[in-house]
Amino acid sequence: MSSEPPPPASAPAAAAAAAATTEGLEADLSAATISKKQQKKDARKAEKAEKAAASQRQTQQQQQPQAEADDPFAANYGDVPVEEIQSKAISGRVWTDIGDLGEADAGRSVLIRGAAQAMRPVSKKMAFLVMRQSMSTVQCVLVATAEAGVSTQMVRFATSLSKESIVDVEGVVSVPKEPLKATTQQVEIQVRKVYCINRAIPTLPINLEDAARSEAEFEKAEQAGEKLVRVLQDTRLNYRAIDLRTPANQAIFRIQCQVENKFREFLSSKQFIGIHSPKLIGGSSEGGAAVFKLQYNGQPACLAQSPQLYKQMSICGGFGRVFEVGPVFRAENSNTHRHLCEFIGLDAEMEIKEHYFEVCDIIDGLFVAIFKHLNENCQKELETINRQYPFEPLKYLEKTLKLTYAEGIQMLKDAGTEIDPMGDLNTESEKKLGRLVKEKYGTEFFILYRYPLAVRPFYTMPCYDDPSYSNSFDVFIRGEEIISGAQRVHTPELLRKRAIECGIDASTIASYIESFSYGAPPHGGFGVGLERVVMLFCALNNIRKTSLFPRDPQRLAP
Amino acid sequence: MSSEPPPPASAPAAAAAAAATTEGLEADLSAATISKKQQKKDARKAEKAEKAAASQRQTQQQQQPQAEADDPFAANYGDVPVEEIQSKAISGRVWTDIGDLGEADAGRSVLIRGAAQAMRPVSKKMAFLVMRQSMSTVQCVLVATAEAGVSTQMVRFATSLSKESIVDVEGVVSVPKEPLKATTQQVEIQVRKVYCINRAIPTLPINLEDAARSEAEFEKAEQAGEKLVRVLQDTRLNYRAIDLRTPANQAIFRIQCQVENKFREFLSSKQFIGIHSPKLIGGSSEGGAAVFKLQYNGQPACLAQSPQLYKQMSICGGFGRVFEVGPVFRAENSNTHRHLCEFIGLDAEMEIKEHYFEVCDIIDGLFVAIFKHLNENCQKELETINRQYPFEPLKYLEKTLKLTYAEGIQMLKDAGTEIDPMGDLNTESEKKLGRLVKEKYGTEFFILYRYPLAVRPFYTMPCYDDPSYSNSFDVFIRGEEIISGAQRVHTPELLRKRAIECGIDASTIASYIESFSYGAPPHGGFGVGLERVVMLFCALNNIRKTSLFPRDPQRLAP
Repeated sequence: MSSEPPPPASAPAAAAAAAATTEGLEADLSAATISKKQQKKDARKAEKAEKAAASQRQTQQQQQPQAEADDPFAANYGDVPVEEIQSKAISGRVWTDIGDLGEADAGRSVLIRGAAQAMRPVSKKMAFLVMRQSMSTVQCVLVATAEAGVSTQMVRFATSLSKESIVDVEGVVSVPKEPLKATTQQVEIQVRKVYCINRAIPTLPINLEDAARSEAEFEKAEQAGEKLVRVLQDTRLNYRAIDLRTPANQAIFRIQCQVENKFREFLSSKQFIGIHSPKLIGGSSEGGAAVFKLQYNGQPACLAQSPQLYKQMSICGGFGRVFEVGPVFRAENSNTHRHLCEFIGLDAEMEIKEHYFEVCDIIDGLFVAIFKHLNENCQKELETINRQYPFEPLKYLEKTLKLTYAEGIQMLKDAGTEIDPMGDLNTESEKKLGRLVKEKYGTEFFILYRYPLAVRPFYTMPCYDDPSYSNSFDVFIRGEEIISGAQRVHTPELLRKRAIECGIDASTIASYIESFSYGAPPHGGFGVGLERVVMLFCALNNIRKTSLFPRDPQRLAP
Repeated sequence: MSSEPPPPASAPAAAAAAAATTEGLEADLSAATISKKQQKKDARKAEKAEKAAASQRQTQQQQQPQAEADDPFAANYGDVPVEEIQSKAISGRVWTDIGDLGEADAGRSVLIRGAAQAMRPVSKKMAFLVMRQSMSTVQCVLVATAEAGVSTQMVRFATSLSKESIVDVEGVVSVPKEPLKATTQQVEIQVRKVYCINRAIPTLPINLEDAARSEAEFEKAEQAGEKLVRVLQDTRLNYRAIDLRTPANQAIFRIQCQVENKFREFLSSKQFIGIHSPKLIGGSSEGGAAVFKLQYNGQPACLAQSPQLYKQMSICGGFGRVFEVGPVFRAENSNTHRHLCEFIGLDAEMEIKEHYFEVCDIIDGLFVAIFKHLNENCQKELETINRQYPFEPLKYLEKTLKLTYAEGIQMLKDAGTEIDPMGDLNTESEKKLGRLVKEKYGTEFFILYRYPLAVRPFYTMPCYDDPSYSNSFDVFIRGEEIISGAQRVHTPELLRKRAIECGIDASTIASYIESFSYGAPPHGGFGVGLERVVMLFCALNNIRKTSLFPRDPQRLAP
């Protein structure tokens, strides 16, 4: 039974241990005494909220109209007791996905399960119920008639459902005379049965309609003198399980999954092998500020800031071409729109025969393939994101533009920017260069190569003709750096020399250097942040929008 | 430039910081003073090894026969200076993969790059050179003749190459009269040119031929009175970058990649979405022994022991069906053949309509698809593993066998095992049950369901008809548990009740419980360890064989 995932962690990691052994609670109170106060405070707060929710659910159960005994159609609606959903039986019934409903289904009896997004009573005898599943909604119509088996009590039951409750609806598909505005499906369901599977509390911490509004809707409302509720980023993230239900969020994480799928698929087709390198790595407490440190069975350890060494070791290990998709940890105190303390790295490393342009060619093919795939196969998702967060489609070329760093510097100089040709670009210069390149070449995706050696890590291969430059590159989307890559030094002599030149004590990286003595092929590679790809492709303004449960210096929960 | 992966970590996490800022070296020496001694010792050891390697390389460079001035064919061989491989030019030459060479290439001139696996001088005028690339080797023949442009000096150059050096060979493909024994390709290369790209040191810490031997070879040698060198597991792992080059290891990690690919592909085809949940989670220092703890910007945090809560929150977040492939961290002091402190979890969670058998059906289809895919499409890899580690193909049924826990207990009882019907199975009983099931049903892959509630985590849904049992299951391969799964409790009332019954302070998991008040669909899921799937499918005896850079209580490097 050992691979059964241990119980929930998050806010209460304690619970994880508690389930395994209650002794855990008493153990090891040595560290973090300062924060224990805060923890207790947080726990009390969570407990209070949970109790309030529990009390809401209790009141709700008492007040909720249930199927009434004197109603001949009482069997057609009601709350399903939890016992009935404890894997009691397999009925053979088939549930239809809301997103699959279409005019072809007209006249067909269907069963759907979804979240009750909106209840709209029209009269005692009639009501609308909007049901949602992922990015799709459908309008369900209740009309109290004997033929339909719908009573006024049933209409009351449906309209008094709390928003976001999980509900089964059985009914007949019909095509409305006028196209529907509020729903994504162009059909309605004439309801025959409504059963509540699991109730949501009546007062949710955030309202889904508020969370799903576009800036344009806010402006329109303001012009009309209306005041709409804005759900702030932090509140969204605090209640992420609700916030994730907005159509835009449903679409964003589907896009993210597609980026990863295409990344894997494309590289696999080019003979890359997916690997997994360790995230717990040996390391000292001297690891510097950007590293998360911990104790590993009494040894100092830290969390990997990148799979760099392991990618390189895998190349030395004979795998030829490898990629990895996995978490990357940065203990940086960067509170920006584009930094996270934990993100998903898309990394690749490959043998090169002659030139690091072999790596650039992979990136060119890979990203053009990703962009095409999204534009061609994820239209529904892109349109859904566009409705809440409008954006212009990314401009890119079939063959990705490559400019030298010197050319980039010159373009900036020509445009009046004062800039050190041997220094790194700052965020502002990168943005400006992005605009200049877009104007001149009509692309928002390009590679800038041959960076000054001084601004790259010591393991970067210098240029053969001028050691003040390096065989390295960055790649930009919409004026933001998204990929870094380079040819790596593959001989121990040069690696040690470069380390020393960079002021690194070569003895601290002796085992790394040594590993290139066992027969190491020339190689290069690159790293990309998955969240950044999605953020910049969709021109979103904050990386927290493209991380399922983001981690920044201030946020560790949920 | 910020997403450029920081420099190598591993043994020297210090280096990571050092490259970014040398100040890091001075910072924060507060923790782990005890282990600093050990660290320094390790660093000194590594430094010594590295210096020895450097000295070997230097001696080698001085002694190595180079192209000689008076040799008319001097241009056809030699060491390529590193400057030439610093992305100097793109020649347009095409390198052929050794694995792609076949009889159809006979007469063709090819260029290959690989590791010089073996040098076999026959005479001053003739030698064999075995070149390797991943799982494939090819024999290259040097015969000193004027037509071939091969001199005796060139033959000497080739035979004096150090093993595992990276070498370019140009030559003409020929079909030998007798089939070759030592190589995987049925063709030879008549060498015209040999260039060494990067030399390995002459004395490698492990010999690849030793590392690639099967048990049968050892036995045969022993019978012949020969003593072969055995490379122990720990030595292999210490020099993993060399060890990974054995054909079996090349095959194992290709199989592992295929398992993951198929996992993703199958679940994607069933409307699952790939997600990434955070590995850094809020948590107290009371997290118990099995949790890695650390400080996160002043807050106590820990590493996720599973994506359990986040999978469930994603279901509450409206994603319907999700899967995740990512690292899982267990600070357990388990020194067994099947436990790791960090492994790759293959996790899935899905809405269920009525019954957790919906989850079992997914597992059935998924694993049968994985097994079929491996057997049908990875024959070369499986044969390669079989050569070093022989194993019987896994027996499985087209429709996976499901037995109740009670049935399993009865089978064990009938076979004379004393066993508590409401307790958990120990490893021995699991093994025995595996044998019994194989005998009776002819399968080594089966699902055991309806476990006693008491042996499952508190969030497991109890059975509707008998709350001493649960809607849960384990899945076994070759008598070892490999998957755990269950229906989860989806109502806050029952979840709180179960937590309390399990002796957990409900206040510590209040926010987890609360999250089921916002509209939570019935759901279930499962978790699998990727390394275990590969280990058990191939009947390997140790999980360290299926982890690229394994982490156990004793090992944190490389």
